[in-house]
Amino acid sequence: MSPQRILVVGSVALDTIRTPYGEVSEALGGSASYFSCSASHFAPVSVVAVVGKDFPEEHRRTFAGRGVDLSGLEAAPGRTFRWRGEYMAELGHAHTLETQLNVFAEFHPKLTDAHRRIPYVFLANIDPDLQLEVLSQMRKPRLVLSDTMNYWIARKPDRVLEVLRRVDVALLNEEEARALAGETHLSRAAESLLAAGAHAVIIKKGEHGANYHSREERFLTPAYPVQALTDPTGAGDSFAGGFMGLLARTDRSDGEALRQAMACGTAMASMAIESFSPARLVDTTPGEIEGRVRELHELVHYDLFPMF
Amino acid sequence: MSPQRILVVGSVALDTIRTPYGEVSEALGGSASYFSCSASHFAPVSVVAVVGKDFPEEHRRTFAGRGVDLSGLEAAPGRTFRWRGEYMAELGHAHTLETQLNVFAEFHPKLTDAHRRIPYVFLANIDPDLQLEVLSQMRKPRLVLSDTMNYWIARKPDRVLEVLRRVDVALLNEEEARALAGETHLSRAAESLLAAGAHAVIIKKGEHGANYHSREERFLTPAYPVQALTDPTGAGDSFAGGFMGLLARTDRSDGEALRQAMACGTAMASMAIESFSPARLVDTTPGEIEGRVRELHELVHYDLFPMF
Repeated sequence: MSPQRILVVGSVALDTIRTPYGEVSEALGGSASYFSCSASHFAPVSVVAVVGKDFPEEHRRTFAGRGVDLSGLEAAPGRTFRWRGEYMAELGHAHTLETQLNVFAEFHPKLTDAHRRIPYVFLANIDPDLQLEVLSQMRKPRLVLSDTMNYWIARKPDRVLEVLRRVDVALLNEEEARALAGETHLSRAAESLLAAGAHAVIIKKGEHGANYHSREERFLTPAYPVQALTDPTGAGDSFAGGFMGLLARTDRSDGEALRQAMACGTAMASMAIESFSPARLVDTTPGEIEGRVRELHELVHYDLFPMF
Repeated sequence: MSPQRILVVGSVALDTIRTPYGEVSEALGGSASYFSCSASHFAPVSVVAVVGKDFPEEHRRTFAGRGVDLSGLEAAPGRTFRWRGEYMAELGHAHTLETQLNVFAEFHPKLTDAHRRIPYVFLANIDPDLQLEVLSQMRKPRLVLSDTMNYWIARKPDRVLEVLRRVDVALLNEEEARALAGETHLSRAAESLLAAGAHAVIIKKGEHGANYHSREERFLTPAYPVQALTDPTGAGDSFAGGFMGLLARTDRSDGEALRQAMACGTAMASMAIESFSPARLVDTTPGEIEGRVRELHELVHYDLFPMF
């Protein structure tokens, strides 16, 4: 096995979060942080993102501890992107209390020649115009995964659809899939996005798991039943990290690999939400990841025997 | 294989339903109807229920066509139980417009000696005191499955818990499990019900599938992705029919059988909601059922390969 390098372009933030289980202040957050702490257990990761001059050295050490290449982490004059939010008892939705884009408002991904040659690419949730700009600079990537959010679907639906058509796999949560497809029923929403030109979509359903849809493959993964739920922030990006991580690690994208990648994504998401910030993801081990993937497999696996 | 007989005690009703996809008036409905039309594809079924003198002969013929034993279907003076409801675009919840209990208000299950010897028993959603009364009359049933609803959990929680302790498997939907356990988080609600003395619980999550929890087994089944969704009424009872049907047909309740039974329940529920009333369940065939169970298996199945 020769793990392939992964490039992630996204946000690195300082999160202040309250949930029914506790709170943190100015903890490491952002899509690129969760993704890279997750994916780096499977394959080497390079981050392209921006932080302010105030970004704590301690968080750089967290990335370094996971072997993440930070040569693409720009330190711009100004303050780091900050998000403040809280979750109520149901934990389904974050209530955003404050968003300070700060240096992220002017983020313009700068790719070196080395970045452009990285074979696996995750375009985290940023402006679809920036996602397309990154894509156009990549030199024959082997697999590109994208994410988005309702904000962009509402403002630039055509650009979001253009991203979907240009990447190999697009991640959407339930509401995003419904909004982009204009279709309430989830399976029909997925079909409609494929008809609109997407190659494959993964619909993330939070505690209800995730569905993979392409013209060749359809696959359903329930969520891992987490007991120690602490903070749902970053679940989607951690899923993306496990999913792309397995593909980059094995350098495969056949049906069997895609199915196991969904399980790896599910396992990583389940760990991410057991702590605030990516702390739990940072500390996990290959043995623990493999154990959770096996446990998940055991929860869904059965052998068919003749019935009639 | 020697399929074992199943007894269902529940309601037979006339339903008037409107959904975004159409409407029906005085169609065959009720828990015992959906259950028996589903389970009878797997094993012989006897119904204990009550109807009024106005119960259409045509509906009796529907049961007879499925080989269902109606010797326990009492025809009481008065009108048959009627329910009128509608579903909005999301289809998650029925809005009850009118409930006429009619003869069902005085329903008191009458079991013959033959009924009492039936080895597989489904106690559909009726007053938990009646469920316990039926249970106490059964002679060493091999497997008993129960259902309930929020109405009884709110009014007789102790009796509902007593039923849970006395049956082999208890069916609950998400809200019922949360309400009965007093716990929002679903996995913890299931653990709490087991701690309260339940042997096994199945938590039905509608379009998100179903979870089986016992001290020995934990198993997650996603829902079958139905395209032709028409009317969600009866999905839970049709699930129960497929689940218990497979167990009665094979006369097994080991882990492998329970897992395939969950798939059979899921397949039958997916068919039930593709038509109004149990029409689709009545018309399906072993080949079609097996096809859907195989398709469901294909949607969740994967082989693990080494990752690290």
